[in-house]
Amino acid sequence: MAKHSFRVGILGATGAVGQYLVARLDGHPWFAVTEVVASDRSAGRFYAEAARWMMPQKMPDAVGRLRVKDLQSELDCDLLLSALDARSAAAEVAYANGGFAVVSNSSLNRLAEDVPLVIPEINRNHLEAIPRQRAARGFTSGFIVTNPNCSTIGLALALKPLQDSFGLAAVRVVTMQAITGAGLDGITATAIQDNVIPHIEGEEEKLEVETRKILGGISATSFLPAPVEISAQCNRVPVLVGHLESVFVRLASPAAPSDVEQALSHFRGEVAGLELPSAPLHAVHLASAADRPQPRLDSGSEGGMAVVVGRPRPTLEGDWKFAVLVHNMVRGAAGAAILNAELLAADSWL
Amino acid sequence: MAKHSFRVGILGATGAVGQYLVARLDGHPWFAVTEVVASDRSAGRFYAEAARWMMPQKMPDAVGRLRVKDLQSELDCDLLLSALDARSAAAEVAYANGGFAVVSNSSLNRLAEDVPLVIPEINRNHLEAIPRQRAARGFTSGFIVTNPNCSTIGLALALKPLQDSFGLAAVRVVTMQAITGAGLDGITATAIQDNVIPHIEGEEEKLEVETRKILGGISATSFLPAPVEISAQCNRVPVLVGHLESVFVRLASPAAPSDVEQALSHFRGEVAGLELPSAPLHAVHLASAADRPQPRLDSGSEGGMAVVVGRPRPTLEGDWKFAVLVHNMVRGAAGAAILNAELLAADSWL
Amino acid sequence: MAKHSFRVGILGATGAVGQYLVARLDGHPWFAVTEVVASDRSAGRFYAEAARWMMPQKMPDAVGRLRVKDLQSELDCDLLLSALDARSAAAEVAYANGGFAVVSNSSLNRLAEDVPLVIPEINRNHLEAIPRQRAARGFTSGFIVTNPNCSTIGLALALKPLQDSFGLAAVRVVTMQAITGAGLDGITATAIQDNVIPHIEGEEEKLEVETRKILGGISATSFLPAPVEISAQCNRVPVLVGHLESVFVRLASPAAPSDVEQALSHFRGEVAGLELPSAPLHAVHLASAADRPQPRLDSGSEGGMAVVVGRPRPTLEGDWKFAVLVHNMVRGAAGAAILNAELLAADSWL
Amino acid sequence: MAKHSFRVGILGATGAVGQYLVARLDGHPWFAVTEVVASDRSAGRFYAEAARWMMPQKMPDAVGRLRVKDLQSELDCDLLLSALDARSAAAEVAYANGGFAVVSNSSLNRLAEDVPLVIPEINRNHLEAIPRQRAARGFTSGFIVTNPNCSTIGLALALKPLQDSFGLAAVRVVTMQAITGAGLDGITATAIQDNVIPHIEGEEEKLEVETRKILGGISATSFLPAPVEISAQCNRVPVLVGHLESVFVRLASPAAPSDVEQALSHFRGEVAGLELPSAPLHAVHLASAADRPQPRLDSGSEGGMAVVVGRPRPTLEGDWKFAVLVHNMVRGAAGAAILNAELLAADSWL
Repeated sequence: MAKHSFRVGILGATGAVGQYLVARLDGHPWFAVTEVVASDRSAGRFYAEAARWMMPQKMPDAVGRLRVKDLQSELDCDLLLSALDARSAAAEVAYANGGFAVVSNSSLNRLAEDVPLVIPEINRNHLEAIPRQRAARGFTSGFIVTNPNCSTIGLALALKPLQDSFGLAAVRVVTMQAITGAGLDGITATAIQDNVIPHIEGEEEKLEVETRKILGGISATSFLPAPVEISAQCNRVPVLVGHLESVFVRLASPAAPSDVEQALSHFRGEVAGLELPSAPLHAVHLASAADRPQPRLDSGSEGGMAVVVGRPRPTLEGDWKFAVLVHNMVRGAAGAAILNAELLAADSWL
Repeated sequence: MAKHSFRVGILGATGAVGQYLVARLDGHPWFAVTEVVASDRSAGRFYAEAARWMMPQKMPDAVGRLRVKDLQSELDCDLLLSALDARSAAAEVAYANGGFAVVSNSSLNRLAEDVPLVIPEINRNHLEAIPRQRAARGFTSGFIVTNPNCSTIGLALALKPLQDSFGLAAVRVVTMQAITGAGLDGITATAIQDNVIPHIEGEEEKLEVETRKILGGISATSFLPAPVEISAQCNRVPVLVGHLESVFVRLASPAAPSDVEQALSHFRGEVAGLELPSAPLHAVHLASAADRPQPRLDSGSEGGMAVVVGRPRPTLEGDWKFAVLVHNMVRGAAGAAILNAELLAADSWL
Repeated sequence: MAKHSFRVGILGATGAVGQYLVARLDGHPWFAVTEVVASDRSAGRFYAEAARWMMPQKMPDAVGRLRVKDLQSELDCDLLLSALDARSAAAEVAYANGGFAVVSNSSLNRLAEDVPLVIPEINRNHLEAIPRQRAARGFTSGFIVTNPNCSTIGLALALKPLQDSFGLAAVRVVTMQAITGAGLDGITATAIQDNVIPHIEGEEEKLEVETRKILGGISATSFLPAPVEISAQCNRVPVLVGHLESVFVRLASPAAPSDVEQALSHFRGEVAGLELPSAPLHAVHLASAADRPQPRLDSGSEGGMAVVVGRPRPTLEGDWKFAVLVHNMVRGAAGAAILNAELLAADSWL
Repeated sequence: MAKHSFRVGILGATGAVGQYLVARLDGHPWFAVTEVVASDRSAGRFYAEAARWMMPQKMPDAVGRLRVKDLQSELDCDLLLSALDARSAAAEVAYANGGFAVVSNSSLNRLAEDVPLVIPEINRNHLEAIPRQRAARGFTSGFIVTNPNCSTIGLALALKPLQDSFGLAAVRVVTMQAITGAGLDGITATAIQDNVIPHIEGEEEKLEVETRKILGGISATSFLPAPVEISAQCNRVPVLVGHLESVFVRLASPAAPSDVEQALSHFRGEVAGLELPSAPLHAVHLASAADRPQPRLDSGSEGGMAVVVGRPRPTLEGDWKFAVLVHNMVRGAAGAAILNAELLAADSWL
């Protein structure tokens, strides 16, 4: 019998992240999908008809038979996972106000001073802001917890072991992001065919600001961003899944290569021992070959929940440089939200 | 009537760079192709049969009718353009010893202490090493001049205007390189399909060392690398043509955005006034939109001879960051060699 | 001095076909663009701002400075080239009614009983329907002439020489169509990445019905479809430009391979001698290698105006089979419309 | 406990098909890999080092620790699965002569008059040729059984239900084949990037001849090809996995659409009841949407062992037309060989 058992509603269930949520919750030991919510256009139809299903696995029958509800609907569930885009994510606040725990992948509330932006292995303690959020917003039982942007998660997970062992001084990162990161309809084929686009609206700032918040601390009244300078350049590449990032990082104290490798490959983070169903054994893998990680070959590490670091090596001005890969739809979105929900269950916030 | 008129032989004429040389010399006002040289496998066959032609334009008839010679052959021409790969580039020295001016795209001799590594707009004065090279190697009339690696040329051309105006302190660069950069057979389709490969053998060091040599000076006895630290991470992306690079550069003195933009867009370099047929009007273009330059749309700027810089903007630690795009087969290879040959003609080295 | 001189307006000027029209009319000896017309969203802005330019060449300055007008505007030009999609192509009739010659790439009116559907090399005589169209619709000086669907043009040009020499009995064709055929925004990147889609809405019927009309005759009162059965299956492939088609055709009378090859490669069609600026020397090329034509290498034959046939060979039930390639944006759209306009000028319909 | 238990050797274990064999035999209920055999270049190294592993899942540890043997080696196993290419497949005969049952994916012996070419659902009875093969070749306990070419398997499985219900008169098929079909190194990236290649050496004949053999009968002395004419055109498309085929088929007797759909979706074939571990529940699926099957979305049906047919519909001359998709590496290669081996075990040939 399951230790926890929750009925889950999915906001934004028909989009790319919504489909990954549906697929990954199929057979989940703690969570069962009982509500699917989407835009007015889909509302009233069966999920099987409303969703332009693009996952390789079959749509779970039980979800396919659910009627899609709109964002004003009453919902019969214990918990909401939100894949809403920033434009419609205002509904999250309404549902939190209505008493729901909302675990959101949306960018809308990530940087709010009373909203935890959480990667369980890194800053589980940021959940302490939930009572403060409730007080500030007049929520009774509801609240909002968010997970970061897809490229942020890869960067933050690679940086955290280095921060713990050596401290961080400055980070420069160049991303090569997959097309699914923009959603099902985000990029036209004619734009990205045989091409790279050196710009993703708002992405550089997300990477810079979110990473500092996640790697930072928390006081009784606010989050305390980590004192590390971060600068990003973001590119879109013609790849379906997997954000690859080339990182230069200045450590605060000297490190030997074997220490860096050990810090990365031994990292377990704050969830060790919690037995969260979606938590990878190692959130950070160290690639064994010089030409890895590669999006098509390595995004699926530990079912997509592990990031993979390649070739960490020292370079100019005390920098280290390496590549890091994150499955943007799993660890970078749907899996991140589910893992946050599992943490909330394990820590008795649900 | 042409100011200059030279018969050109092409070494490595059947490969990807060789084909670009053939195509770009078609109708050239100074140079006519009279010899095509390749491996033993192709020798003796007509070029039209020996070359697996992959250019969009038609093969020039006159070249198609040439017999391919091998690398030991006597050649009837005034000048050699070499697209040999590093393994067979030893032949270049033999031909230089035999009296030929060899203008090479190969990496083999680029870093030799007596071989000029030249981008005409940047370091025309490095040709002064030719007499020293002849003396050291016992060449009479022959010599070797090289052009840089494809990704180096993009970086060096973007950095030179900044070096001239503000000085350079440190450079970090992440490349996203096209598949043609590895030659016709360099990468298998199964390796790069829907993928990015975060490693190109030897490429990072080429970018770092070649750039310092090009941006540096020359004394009576040696080249003097520029005192700038450079660190590169190189990636292969599924794009046919056009190397895109995300650059972080620390300038030696403060700069206002308008000064940086002006330095880049006004750059003319040392070839202004020489009227070299292949020289672009502006070797560096400044992209007008935030999402440019893009390989598929912008590689062909000024026929592929201009690099395009996008979004130069200040960032952490006094760095500037920007994207730069170079047509790896034209400005980064065949066009670079031809431009060097034109410079040698204009400067009376031929 | 030009034999003809016309001021041209472009309907749907900001889309993919519209941009090809703008690019190909730059420097055209007979036609100058004086009006650009598009949807309400673009109207009032300069073309340089309204068009998301995706062509490799630079936007012509003179066009970039034109103000975009909407589809209800008065226009100052002699001739309209229309790249409107079927939804907005109703405006074409209004302009024809207002006295304009409208040369359209839209599918809306192609099959109307009084609208010529013309490939100049094949059925120039279908222009005889213009007076009948004017009478039926009450047009005074205006009229509408259309060019076929992009994949139809490739098929019809390959079939016409065979029809002339041997007669046609039955045709089966499978297309592999490029993404630009769906317009700039027609296909999302997530749909076609690493994929083939075996369905294009309405395309099979277009290929079947349009081809019969083009290859057919004309009477005083109607078009007379060619008595050939045609069946199509249409696929979308992840290629930017160039529709490739695998064709099985049953000839009405026996043919030797050399006769088939000669029929194809000697085909000149009805425009020989007219000196239309956009007409290719040979509308049908015969590929010389077994693995050709290929979209990336061969779409640009004669500037994109020639189709290329590969490996015609006899097979079961008296069929011949071969591949044919058409540049879907040039010969299949913008170039087709311009060539039709040139024919109208040469035949004194303008 | 397993009903059957066999030690398996893999010939050609380091290539693309070999890797799929290794991956799919991991955890197989009847078969355990005990030998990996490859070219001289790999021999003597651990499999983990010799194989350039490109599968998304992890290499099975036990196989990674095996030493690769060469094709002249003594082998310690009960059964050989061969992924050798045609050039080295002569070794299969030597091993069969040495007493091994060889289940081969190679094309070398497929058409031999005494070698069964088997798809278990279709022509299980062709195994009756094994005694005849042994007699003719002087084999004692060994023999060779082959599976068809990857594109043949998709076509044959789609045709078999129609043959059973209505008879077949003529077939025309156009393939769009994935790059993995050519092996790890078969196609260069520069050849297929943004392109389609309308030729695959020898493929058309394989499709035509193999399909007739599989759909045909067997007498005491020979195989009896099915009396159906087949004509193929084969194209390579830039897709990683999944061969899509557009088929025109003339049935021998009239059929209603519902009958055709029922014949396809109800097909079970000759393995029903055998409980072969790799056999799909339904070898032929009928796609539910007009734009399916698609290689990226549907190749994995039933773990890649089911083919998917889309939009069967009547057309000219009594033809039916439809699309069919086969996972070229699973149902079309590795999975096909394993299923044949399972059939041999179930039918007591091992």
